[in-house]
Amino acid sequence: MMKMIIAVVQNKDSNHLRIALAKAHFGATQLSTTGSFLQSKNSTFMIVVKDEQVDDVLAVIKKHAKTREQFMTPSAYIDNAANSMPVNVQVGGATVFVLPVDSMFHF
Amino acid sequence: MMKMIIAVVQNKDSNHLRIALAKAHFGATQLSTTGSFLQSKNSTFMIVVKDEQVDDVLAVIKKHAKTREQFMTPSAYIDNAANSMPVNVQVGGATVFVLPVDSMFHF
Amino acid sequence: MMKMIIAVVQNKDSNHLRIALAKAHFGATQLSTTGSFLQSKNSTFMIVVKDEQVDDVLAVIKKHAKTREQFMTPSAYIDNAANSMPVNVQVGGATVFVLPVDSMFHF
Ligand code: NI
Ligand code: NI
Ligand code: NI
Repeated sequence: MMKMIIAVVQNKDSNHLRIALAKAHFGATQLSTTGSFLQSKNSTFMIVVKDEQVDDVLAVIKKHAKTREQFMTPSAYIDNAANSMPVNVQVGGATVFVLPVDSMFHF
Repeated sequence: MMKMIIAVVQNKDSNHLRIALAKAHFGATQLSTTGSFLQSKNSTFMIVVKDEQVDDVLAVIKKHAKTREQFMTPSAYIDNAANSMPVNVQVGGATVFVLPVDSMFHF
Repeated sequence: MMKMIIAVVQNKDSNHLRIALAKAHFGATQLSTTGSFLQSKNSTFMIVVKDEQVDDVLAVIKKHAKTREQFMTPSAYIDNAANSMPVNVQVGGATVFVLPVDSMFHF
């Protein structure tokens, strides 16, 4: 049996995730998508694998796209010194759906 | 159990539907798509919810994107008076698929 | 029962396939996608049909998008005569997934 894994990730994580999936020999089809709440541009990956590979794919996604904190220095164009302290922001995050697949063909 | 609702709607209804889904607290991932028959640009929404919420999502889609008649006045650049009478045209319409989802993850 | 057929094909085959599906009265929703390995731009078709029509859709996809060999003459801007011999290259190819669909609605 096979599964389709649909992963919605932030654009900033999509290159890293794409390369990590390819290194692990998981083919993916990538779509440009938009999140409905903040209309943020994101990237959606469609990956089809055998049931027993699902956990491996999930591990790659988790490793490369999970929510984490990052210190960011406000951009240089803000020339108020008080604002240029590094701040802790949340970045990343993946929403992942696993769907059943009946069959797959290569022509 | 969960379902993925895939709704293909006209571009002109997509903003209205997106806002209505968000107000009802349904997250969606939006895709730019093309219909194959007339190559019309449309918008596809991917919404994943629990089984018992499917009817609520369908009701929101129906309310905001269903086929309806609209009086339209032919554009002003047609300066033949006979053509400037308002005409009744069909707009909107949604095609919706409900697919089973095995599992969902947030990373 | 119904199925969703998701077919990922090369851009160069997408118009031919779209027209062939339409002639066979199969509606499709088309997405611009990117393959993860070579980041090649491709086209993904979403087609929902009754179980008993799946084989017909697969036959249309196979006929219009399958891998085949093609003689290509290297572009004219290469003015080394040795390179202008026609070469045999592989083009086309479709990857197709069939997913179960619980229900479908037109609004
Ligand atoms: Ni890495
Ligand atoms: Ni409304
Ligand atoms: Ni043909």
